[in-house]
Amino acid sequence: MQQPEKGSYQERPYQGKMEPDDGQWIRPAKDYASTRFSSLDQINGNNVQQLKLAFTFSTGLERGHEAAPLVVNNTMYIVTPFPNKLFALDLTKPGGPMKWVYEPKPTPASQGVACCDVVNRGASYFDGKIFYNTLDDQTVAVDANSGREVWRVRLGDINKGETLTMAPLVAKGKVIVGNSGGEMGVRGWLTAVDAKTGKIAWRAYATGPDKEVLIGPKFKPYYASERGQDLGVKSWPPDAWRIGGGGAWGWISYDPELNLLYYGTANPGPWNADARPGDNKWTAGVFARDADTGEAVWFYQFSPHDLYDYDGVNENILLDLPIGGGTKKVLVHPDRNGYVYVIDRTNGKVESANVFAPITTSKGVNLQTGQLEYVKDKETKLGVVVRNLCPTAPGAKDWQPSAFSPRTGLLYIPHNNLCMDEEDMQVNYIAGTPYVGANVRMYNAPGGYGGLFTAWDPVAGKAVWNIPDRFPVWSGALVTGGDLVFYGTLDGWFRAVDARTGRELWRFKTGSGIIGQPISYKGPDGKQYIAILSGVGGWAGAIVSGGLDGRDSSAALGFAGAMKDLPKYTTPGGMLYVFSLP
Amino acid sequence: MQQPEKGSYQERPYQGKMEPDDGQWIRPAKDYASTRFSSLDQINGNNVQQLKLAFTFSTGLERGHEAAPLVVNNTMYIVTPFPNKLFALDLTKPGGPMKWVYEPKPTPASQGVACCDVVNRGASYFDGKIFYNTLDDQTVAVDANSGREVWRVRLGDINKGETLTMAPLVAKGKVIVGNSGGEMGVRGWLTAVDAKTGKIAWRAYATGPDKEVLIGPKFKPYYASERGQDLGVKSWPPDAWRIGGGGAWGWISYDPELNLLYYGTANPGPWNADARPGDNKWTAGVFARDADTGEAVWFYQFSPHDLYDYDGVNENILLDLPIGGGTKKVLVHPDRNGYVYVIDRTNGKVESANVFAPITTSKGVNLQTGQLEYVKDKETKLGVVVRNLCPTAPGAKDWQPSAFSPRTGLLYIPHNNLCMDEEDMQVNYIAGTPYVGANVRMYNAPGGYGGLFTAWDPVAGKAVWNIPDRFPVWSGALVTGGDLVFYGTLDGWFRAVDARTGRELWRFKTGSGIIGQPISYKGPDGKQYIAILSGVGGWAGAIVSGGLDGRDSSAALGFAGAMKDLPKYTTPGGMLYVFSLP
Repeated sequence: MQQPEKGSYQERPYQGKMEPDDGQWIRPAKDYASTRFSSLDQINGNNVQQLKLAFTFSTGLERGHEAAPLVVNNTMYIVTPFPNKLFALDLTKPGGPMKWVYEPKPTPASQGVACCDVVNRGASYFDGKIFYNTLDDQTVAVDANSGREVWRVRLGDINKGETLTMAPLVAKGKVIVGNSGGEMGVRGWLTAVDAKTGKIAWRAYATGPDKEVLIGPKFKPYYASERGQDLGVKSWPPDAWRIGGGGAWGWISYDPELNLLYYGTANPGPWNADARPGDNKWTAGVFARDADTGEAVWFYQFSPHDLYDYDGVNENILLDLPIGGGTKKVLVHPDRNGYVYVIDRTNGKVESANVFAPITTSKGVNLQTGQLEYVKDKETKLGVVVRNLCPTAPGAKDWQPSAFSPRTGLLYIPHNNLCMDEEDMQVNYIAGTPYVGANVRMYNAPGGYGGLFTAWDPVAGKAVWNIPDRFPVWSGALVTGGDLVFYGTLDGWFRAVDARTGRELWRFKTGSGIIGQPISYKGPDGKQYIAILSGVGGWAGAIVSGGLDGRDSSAALGFAGAMKDLPKYTTPGGMLYVFSLP
Repeated sequence: MQQPEKGSYQERPYQGKMEPDDGQWIRPAKDYASTRFSSLDQINGNNVQQLKLAFTFSTGLERGHEAAPLVVNNTMYIVTPFPNKLFALDLTKPGGPMKWVYEPKPTPASQGVACCDVVNRGASYFDGKIFYNTLDDQTVAVDANSGREVWRVRLGDINKGETLTMAPLVAKGKVIVGNSGGEMGVRGWLTAVDAKTGKIAWRAYATGPDKEVLIGPKFKPYYASERGQDLGVKSWPPDAWRIGGGGAWGWISYDPELNLLYYGTANPGPWNADARPGDNKWTAGVFARDADTGEAVWFYQFSPHDLYDYDGVNENILLDLPIGGGTKKVLVHPDRNGYVYVIDRTNGKVESANVFAPITTSKGVNLQTGQLEYVKDKETKLGVVVRNLCPTAPGAKDWQPSAFSPRTGLLYIPHNNLCMDEEDMQVNYIAGTPYVGANVRMYNAPGGYGGLFTAWDPVAGKAVWNIPDRFPVWSGALVTGGDLVFYGTLDGWFRAVDARTGRELWRFKTGSGIIGQPISYKGPDGKQYIAILSGVGGWAGAIVSGGLDGRDSSAALGFAGAMKDLPKYTTPGGMLYVFSLP
């Protein structure tokens, strides 16, 4: 088993460019680079103990709340899980009273095809409008002042098992949206919708002919393994690419100078890898695409012919790091397969790939070929139970987004500490039904705990400190100019820790488990606020929000077994918590 | 219209006996006298501004949360609305983690016969056990340490429209329980269950032959109108008493010296009073009963032949007040009909009855005869819309319990400021279905607001101060040794006001509207805590928790129209909030 290396901390403040901070929070990850860094510093290590709840707001919904609130023009916007209400709260008045609620009323049937709770990961603001997705495959634009719907467009089909759960990003006047449904045999895509009109500008599939993947003359992947014609067809058995997964339900970053979008593609389907010999392009990797046309510029596959549900959809943090003597434009990506990748974002070259969680399924990443080196006797097989596979299907890290501080130079990674046994099974495709073909049973990795919160030095490629947690840390992270890192736990604690030492400075027990994303903003009174949605659920918390039976270790695609104690620690209930100094 | 008198405040501290305060909260109303006074004084007017949220806990349920938490041996117990879970929280650990949850799993069909949301008003602790009721008519005893069920007993039948929503009181080793269902043609009763075994000790009906009402040689009512044989039959049309209402879903008080239980009986059914000529004994009044045998000792009828759904179930606060030159053992009762009654609790004599809310339906209470003097042209009639009836069906005050401070001598009354139009209709009885026979439309009374919080001098019979609120004040009240009064509003504000002046000293915006009952206790760390359940619903808030349409002014038995703006101000969601000083 490979274990993360842990080093002493040599502070290396970030020298790259950051977007100016206006004290708002208008994008899912705060900025285009996806840092989740707020420069606000009123709350710091000297006063965080005095942090006090300013107000709360109940969404009235019991499913998992994964969204980051937005704050624009002294209004807070909250997107809920199904039925995907959008609440606007007036921050200029005490207690943040409701201004309006927009209700898109998605079809209830969409709940039946969502693999792992009916979550929604948030919205984006642009040009007077809030953009977000509904579970039943619609993207909506809502007037940020009035709450009136400006347009809505249907981008997918729940009858094929497609849903939308991700937070769109708006770049170059386009709303960028990707689909979910890798466990239902969907064909993944990323779609750009005109922010003014709701018309589709382009769509890039993750499988199939180059034409449909938007691979053309601009496409210059760094590694030979990504080169060749129509690999999105040829790296699959006949027609398997049509139901091959590779959705784009994770995070999108944007580099305005290079005019490139970066996003990961999800696992290939079905999980049973015997059913799909080949590399299964372009799943489980990262695309760089031209933001205007969607044309692919490069691609790198983290997990070719993925065996373990290692989606490549995790966040890509765009940084200019001191690497190889100079400053390199990179993206930093903590992957489900257990490595933190540092990749030259101009061309897709892997600069480093270091272990951040226990790994038995691979021996490392070959930096010459870019290939993940699988461990032969950990390969999954039809009808055979293969044991002690680490990381598990939800990965060393799932969707829960990291944060990066330019002040410490560290990446703060909420993640999992789990292993699993897997037995693959025959599976047939029936549209709109689960297409998995694997029995999975998960349990805690060595150490006996289910999760970790890790500060990671992306230049040294080492962990600086770790905070273990009983359960997977399924919330996002926030880091601030006050050198505080905020995150939440599945048993409901919201924590502030010292960004340099990891020492816990403050904690607050919210009403339900936390899987939301903390944000920070400046209120109309000039004070710094910290906001988080509490409300357990998601894949890890579905045992509580969906009332699953922990004795059935195959429930929630094998996750319920590892989470069987969670119902003893928390209860469902969606609630916004907003904190400030007295 | 009669309006409350308002006087200047002459402080008159209470000289009577109070139970010693151990810093716990083991009964619904804190003590047998139902004062809801906590002598804890760490939090006071000088420091309440620093009050800080210590922790929160989500019940995961979206219906109305009316219960008072209990605190016993450093454990907090919370009863939820249907499905009536009982949570135990460990107060010795940070964040109050869950110790266990007991789930009685009442039949879902019981939700269909609950008139006004599926609320539960709380539990009682006695002898190592928590006692409470389920919506489907069971009383349960749960081991307070382990959460194991000790016994359960079924006391009613949902097929007749019976439900249990009240908080039982334990007195003399018996659990005292009353039924709900006045809008479904139930026959009201109060039942004593042996706390050890769960066996029924006695049952006293509110209608029918003396034998079944437990009226015998001990019965000595003060007024002639309550005297005569089998009035529970004779004051009704033939057999109408069998479906005549008079449940006991409100509060129970107990005087250990007199060994008497005091409780009110609900409205007669149906609402259409033409269907039931006569006084309709023993509805809409107050019984004093021997706690051992249940035998009636006296009865007084607040609203003979009730025309307006004026249940008599509100709280009876047992005080020894300076009246008529000496000290008199009284009960103080703010009734739905708009008067605060002060009654000699040894014999049922009305000492005073003063107006605490706008009244058009009666001219006063004759202290010689005890009779409520109705206003002729406000009498409801079949097929005629009678307008401007004040108070309304939910009364000048509904279930929301008052608090009394021995330090100020004042009663703190959360209540309504509403009027209505009513038209009576023919109605037939079908078991287990609504049996009402009235169309009602409610609206705000003069002043334009829906609710008031009033400090009342029960000796002078006058209001000392009033705080208007946009909506009916549907939460309970708490008053403390720090001379603070706590209560919540339907739009989610939790408030602390000066017990002498009514000046607001602190407020906090909870996530949902508040209809719970605040309590105070001393934690294992020696600190004073204030706890409240937020979670809108109940009759007033059903428009939100039940998703009713405010355009249908007859929804929620006519209450929805008056509450049509509430969905703009709050959202559902059950959450415990616990506050303390930093």
